[in-house]
Amino acid sequence: MPTAEPGDRPSDTAAARLTIDLAALAGNFRLIAARAAPAAVGAAVKADAYGLGLAPVATALHSAGARTFFVAWLEEGIALRRLLPDAEILCLNGLAPGAAEAYAAHRLTPVLGSLEEIAEWRATSHGGQAPAGLQIDSGMARLGLSAEEVDRLVAYRKPLEGLSLTLVMSHLASGDDPADPMNLAQRASFEKDRGRLGLAHVRSSLAASGGSFLGSDFHLDLVRPGAALYGLAPLAGEANLMAQVVRLQAKILQVRRVDRGMTVGYGATHRTTRPSRLATISAGYADGYPRSLSNRGHACLGSVRVPVVGRVSMDLLTLDVTDAPADLARRGAWVDLIGPLHSVDALATEAGTIGYEILTALGRRYARHYLPVDGTPGSQTGAAP
Amino acid sequence: MPTAEPGDRPSDTAAARLTIDLAALAGNFRLIAARAAPAAVGAAVKADAYGLGLAPVATALHSAGARTFFVAWLEEGIALRRLLPDAEILCLNGLAPGAAEAYAAHRLTPVLGSLEEIAEWRATSHGGQAPAGLQIDSGMARLGLSAEEVDRLVAYRKPLEGLSLTLVMSHLASGDDPADPMNLAQRASFEKDRGRLGLAHVRSSLAASGGSFLGSDFHLDLVRPGAALYGLAPLAGEANLMAQVVRLQAKILQVRRVDRGMTVGYGATHRTTRPSRLATISAGYADGYPRSLSNRGHACLGSVRVPVVGRVSMDLLTLDVTDAPADLARRGAWVDLIGPLHSVDALATEAGTIGYEILTALGRRYARHYLPVDGTPGSQTGAAP
Repeated sequence: MPTAEPGDRPSDTAAARLTIDLAALAGNFRLIAARAAPAAVGAAVKADAYGLGLAPVATALHSAGARTFFVAWLEEGIALRRLLPDAEILCLNGLAPGAAEAYAAHRLTPVLGSLEEIAEWRATSHGGQAPAGLQIDSGMARLGLSAEEVDRLVAYRKPLEGLSLTLVMSHLASGDDPADPMNLAQRASFEKDRGRLGLAHVRSSLAASGGSFLGSDFHLDLVRPGAALYGLAPLAGEANLMAQVVRLQAKILQVRRVDRGMTVGYGATHRTTRPSRLATISAGYADGYPRSLSNRGHACLGSVRVPVVGRVSMDLLTLDVTDAPADLARRGAWVDLIGPLHSVDALATEAGTIGYEILTALGRRYARHYLPVDGTPGSQTGAAP
Repeated sequence: MPTAEPGDRPSDTAAARLTIDLAALAGNFRLIAARAAPAAVGAAVKADAYGLGLAPVATALHSAGARTFFVAWLEEGIALRRLLPDAEILCLNGLAPGAAEAYAAHRLTPVLGSLEEIAEWRATSHGGQAPAGLQIDSGMARLGLSAEEVDRLVAYRKPLEGLSLTLVMSHLASGDDPADPMNLAQRASFEKDRGRLGLAHVRSSLAASGGSFLGSDFHLDLVRPGAALYGLAPLAGEANLMAQVVRLQAKILQVRRVDRGMTVGYGATHRTTRPSRLATISAGYADGYPRSLSNRGHACLGSVRVPVVGRVSMDLLTLDVTDAPADLARRGAWVDLIGPLHSVDALATEAGTIGYEILTALGRRYARHYLPVDGTPGSQTGAAP
């Protein structure tokens, strides 16, 4: 691709960098695997591994023991197949219309989710005998067989005959909230439909990140976390057991002194109430730092919390560093936008969204560093986006 | 990069596609050039040409006559230099700390914005004699010489001696609002500071997209639009003269009938009030379709406006297509998320943001089609992200 290539500049002169701790990632995988056992763990690596880079993330998870992976799109599966020739790869978005032949050609398992998809899968050159998953909707109304479709299938004598179903699954709408009665209702609905369809013997999965922490009754044969692997809290409002994986830093480009009453940024939405020092930082909404953080977000300069003032621009944001020591608030200093003192989840809360959206929006301009799984100090490697 | 490669699948089987009309882009450039003459037009192509792809966009603008380009980061300048060996390329984010030598090596013009940057530029191997720009802050408090720094420079006898300044510029905080008195105040401040610094003879620029439409008093020697080139309305609340450049379509993966009272999506935030048909679409917030459009956005199925129901997911969103004809609301049909009937600006308003953030967040999973500058029908070309 034609844009920024980190190799063009040593990372010590990069204006912003994203550090991804693959050792923490692998540790998160092992933690979930230990809690979920005897259930297996499949890793969700869709959306470029939640924005963190499919190749390094999938490779690290594989080295930690992952053998089953979930992507959303066919193209993601094809890319992952190149990286992991022997892994099981399931495509959650079902059978993309008109693209059925490609799944078997790349040994990808589509998770079929409607009678139309089942029919199209049967119409492929292999007659539907390549491995497939099946999704049953239990309350999301998003993907998977609807109640009406399950009824229609049950009315046939041998509704799924000839298919090689290797996984039957459903998805929780409120898996991050242990108190939500919908979790139990969805599990019951899923169990009932599996039985009605004669699929009680097929490997089954219900839990994503949240569900993996709802207790063993939700684990079934396979849990399939994504967010928790990447350090997000799997359960809302509870202590986060997962290690942080992401650190996002950007350099101060300029520090300026301004008088009381100076306006800042587009639309002059901030006005200083005292003589101030303002630091301009080399990241903006084009880098995935949401514009909704305008006048709301915080960053950390050392251990000092500094507020975003004015609107976040496309390539820049401005922090009020008046209360930070001058030796920290200087041109070239690193600011933590996401870091040990300010988690992805915390930033997301400030932005009015969820950590998932923050991660998947992480931009392409950062110099990306991957801390290796074995944790060897100093062996960071730059990786092209 | 390891993720989706459009070449893996013919675009007619892609689940989502982004069409970028380079002829419309070129037309927008020519429209602004005609209005701004005798001022020249520089094109802002930072942030991967506002998310639309640096290589095809910059090449198309060059063919339409653009010879001066603005990027934000050094790395963007290096990438653009490879594409356009003879263009003038200015880096708006100033001199990245510690990276001074690279600008001259790639014949990039940093827009210096602080005394520290001027000093660092002078300390490079060429002694500061390579072409540079200078930014003077006139009210953004973001980049450029502060009032205090201008005073200090003026106190020197020959403050900028030895520098080869090829552009002096400032940036409007409310250029999209012709009624905002800040525009005149910023222009006056900029003119005054240029005079004080002895730069009245140097090529000057104040107007970005909005400023280009504030009248010839704001054009100075060079206007530097970005957003307007890409079809966004340059002035808030006025008719948009720019041609639309972007169309974003995604396929319906499933259509389901649901009863009255069914809940939809994460957190069950939508409940149907009648027997409904719901369509699940292959795009989500990982594709830059903001999660803030949950229960607020609209898409178009043919000419029928259909609302987003429930929360936008990472890879999927759900539309209520009950009021659309069944022959349109079917698996495999294309839905316009952005299109002739629903502009980028309109989508941004629904999402509570601005079109700039929508464009720069456009995801990497789409099959990208570029309609060529010469407008030849059927000569679409796929381009890797």
